[in-house]
Amino acid sequence: MATESSIVRFTNCVLACCGQAKREDLFIDTGTGKIIDESDPRVDKALVVNLNGRILSPGLLEVQLNGAKGFDFSDVPVDNMESYASSFRRTSQGILEMGVTSFLPTLVTSEAQTFKIAMPIVRPNGAQRDHELGAESLGCHCEGPFLSRERKGAHPPDLLLEPVKRIESILGFYGVDSLGAPISKENAGQQISAIRKITLSSELPGMLETIRTLTREYGIVCSLGHSPATYEEGLAAVRAGANMLTHLYNAMEPCLHRSPGLVGLIGAPETDLSTPPIERPFFGLIADGVHVAPSCARMAWAVHKNGCILTTDGTAATGFDLPDGTFEWTHGRTVVKKGEKLFLEGTDTLAGGTTTLLQCVSNLIRWTGCEAAEALQTVTATPARMLRCEDTKGTLKVGADADLVVLSWSEGEKNSRELQVDEVWKFGKRCFTRKE
Amino acid sequence: MATESSIVRFTNCVLACCGQAKREDLFIDTGTGKIIDESDPRVDKALVVNLNGRILSPGLLEVQLNGAKGFDFSDVPVDNMESYASSFRRTSQGILEMGVTSFLPTLVTSEAQTFKIAMPIVRPNGAQRDHELGAESLGCHCEGPFLSRERKGAHPPDLLLEPVKRIESILGFYGVDSLGAPISKENAGQQISAIRKITLSSELPGMLETIRTLTREYGIVCSLGHSPATYEEGLAAVRAGANMLTHLYNAMEPCLHRSPGLVGLIGAPETDLSTPPIERPFFGLIADGVHVAPSCARMAWAVHKNGCILTTDGTAATGFDLPDGTFEWTHGRTVVKKGEKLFLEGTDTLAGGTTTLLQCVSNLIRWTGCEAAEALQTVTATPARMLRCEDTKGTLKVGADADLVVLSWSEGEKNSRELQVDEVWKFGKRCFTRKE
Repeated sequence: MATESSIVRFTNCVLACCGQAKREDLFIDTGTGKIIDESDPRVDKALVVNLNGRILSPGLLEVQLNGAKGFDFSDVPVDNMESYASSFRRTSQGILEMGVTSFLPTLVTSEAQTFKIAMPIVRPNGAQRDHELGAESLGCHCEGPFLSRERKGAHPPDLLLEPVKRIESILGFYGVDSLGAPISKENAGQQISAIRKITLSSELPGMLETIRTLTREYGIVCSLGHSPATYEEGLAAVRAGANMLTHLYNAMEPCLHRSPGLVGLIGAPETDLSTPPIERPFFGLIADGVHVAPSCARMAWAVHKNGCILTTDGTAATGFDLPDGTFEWTHGRTVVKKGEKLFLEGTDTLAGGTTTLLQCVSNLIRWTGCEAAEALQTVTATPARMLRCEDTKGTLKVGADADLVVLSWSEGEKNSRELQVDEVWKFGKRCFTRKE
Repeated sequence: MATESSIVRFTNCVLACCGQAKREDLFIDTGTGKIIDESDPRVDKALVVNLNGRILSPGLLEVQLNGAKGFDFSDVPVDNMESYASSFRRTSQGILEMGVTSFLPTLVTSEAQTFKIAMPIVRPNGAQRDHELGAESLGCHCEGPFLSRERKGAHPPDLLLEPVKRIESILGFYGVDSLGAPISKENAGQQISAIRKITLSSELPGMLETIRTLTREYGIVCSLGHSPATYEEGLAAVRAGANMLTHLYNAMEPCLHRSPGLVGLIGAPETDLSTPPIERPFFGLIADGVHVAPSCARMAWAVHKNGCILTTDGTAATGFDLPDGTFEWTHGRTVVKKGEKLFLEGTDTLAGGTTTLLQCVSNLIRWTGCEAAEALQTVTATPARMLRCEDTKGTLKVGADADLVVLSWSEGEKNSRELQVDEVWKFGKRCFTRKE
């Protein structure tokens, strides 16, 4: 995508970056699609974009999105790759319009074939630097099938697996190509695997060794979830290399005061973090007001702000004006939509979310009283740190990708304020402008 | 207690006050027993006490102490007031040596007679300004009998009551004298009731109205505990006037992510705190490492630092070198001591704590990595704010009572540091010096 290079100067805006709000201008190069320094000699000839006091934030980063706009990424046809590729692209474009400039397309527990077919489509596509692809895939998030039956949530139990042969089971299931080659001197620093992150249940047999191999040899993020692990088992998994908890509170043991489970890891005392030193894990938090009570969401955020990553667990029903009713879902099952809630039919098991990531940010602001910049950190800088791409994504620093959103406030229900997406820029190109 | 007045200047010390550590001198008047300003003309002639760099903190304040040093406050003989008074005084002196200069003697669920007999002894005794009384009673904490059967803990179920006639039931049970007269223009600002605080279960019939009367008309602190109340019921009780949660996590519903119970109140979202505005309640936290897992303790502290009040729930076994074994307890029952744990015999129900308040402070420092001054706030300024005596207790500001502790670090188990009490001053008099 070589295009003519020009400089854009965003002015009269509030930059939201790394938890801080700053009244400064921002400069980008539309050719390279990167943020440049104001000392660059070309800034004098910049095209000026006056944002009239609005917020300019790094584009949102969603690490757990099962689908959106009427399409589920796990709905993989066996015999029609083209149709899947086309649906994925259309959906990625729809996701971009919701302010999400990068994401991890999330595949839930399915047959091995599903993962193998989907992987060439959902794999990282940022190297193309093509804004027309929509929201950029940073790699696939595999949520399953190495999950616990006890905490399966809406995952189909017959398809759950144990990594009995450790890393070989993983490679065999997702396919060797999906994981890429082990990290070596030659490929260090490159994103070579189609898979970026795997949610797994650490207490399954052989899983600790598997986590060690996945994180150290393949550079894949291991996130603990759909698991009945105790606090101590979770701590062992963090020591092995896991650095995240998938949708905190949901599909894990309740945090009891003498048996805190995985939830307790976000509050791990200093005495549990030494020899050798480890860090409290990042955690996904579905801040839709449905999956987690507002007080529990506020508590998790307050306990470990630097680890808090809002996610939607979004589905085909996200960003899609689906009426209440019963709908077909993956694996021949049906879901029932009631308002913002989506249930596996005939159960009270939630089958994912329906709200957008920016709505979750607005919820967090309302529940905690924090500043917008602080809340935006949970969907920009923090997930970027978790994925170790904090120099290029989720930041406004020089050299980072010019993936940007312009946000303003709208009046929500009950006089509450809601952030709304006014513009989205991807790789330095304006891709979306809200219609008044 | 009119004594000759002299001025003491503490120097070469670290003042721990209101969460901050400051290298400043402190001046007290040993006659009035109060902290004075350094501009006082008498400071030139002050007796200088060089603390050699040690910590000088307000004396500790314990709001839930059932007993100590081999004596339980609820162990009230029907026919021997003198023996009870003498045991209370001896115990109060023992408590002072643990660094606790003020406390709420806590009476657990018992017959009405027990409360009525004990009340003249355990009532506030600070007006006498007599350091020889030991730790000062700020008034009785009645933990029961208006508690829920469902969450009775170690309280005898046959003695639990409901306030069926609302405030009349309360007055009838504890005795009119125990509550004092309703607040009026004449007695405003005086501590006139023997009772300072009542732990109650807010979902009992008539309790919300009772809370309103107790807090607004009698100025008595209402703390929610031994209760299966939901989050919403707890919120209604806070709106009615309750401002504390008794031993957070213990004897209440677990904090489930869509049913957060009373625990959830410490994380109450902003959206639940308006119209009319209320504040998140203070909460007692038994930070002994036995009642609550360290990660849960750290979480509660991180969520609501300004509300965190460490307590011991101490018993006769506190500060008393009791060997492991089976011991007689109140109401003809027996308890079993195993290390730091105390169980109701034949059950796994904890029957109170055995560690000292300062040990709890050291635990908090170790678990959270916070500064000593910050941890000390949870047993000084914060409980004083809860009891609305922050100008005289738990502070080093001018005009406050010269209730002070000198603390230093000792080497604990596993190379951990533990705070130890080197000196205790009560009403400006040195009452305890640790023997080397």
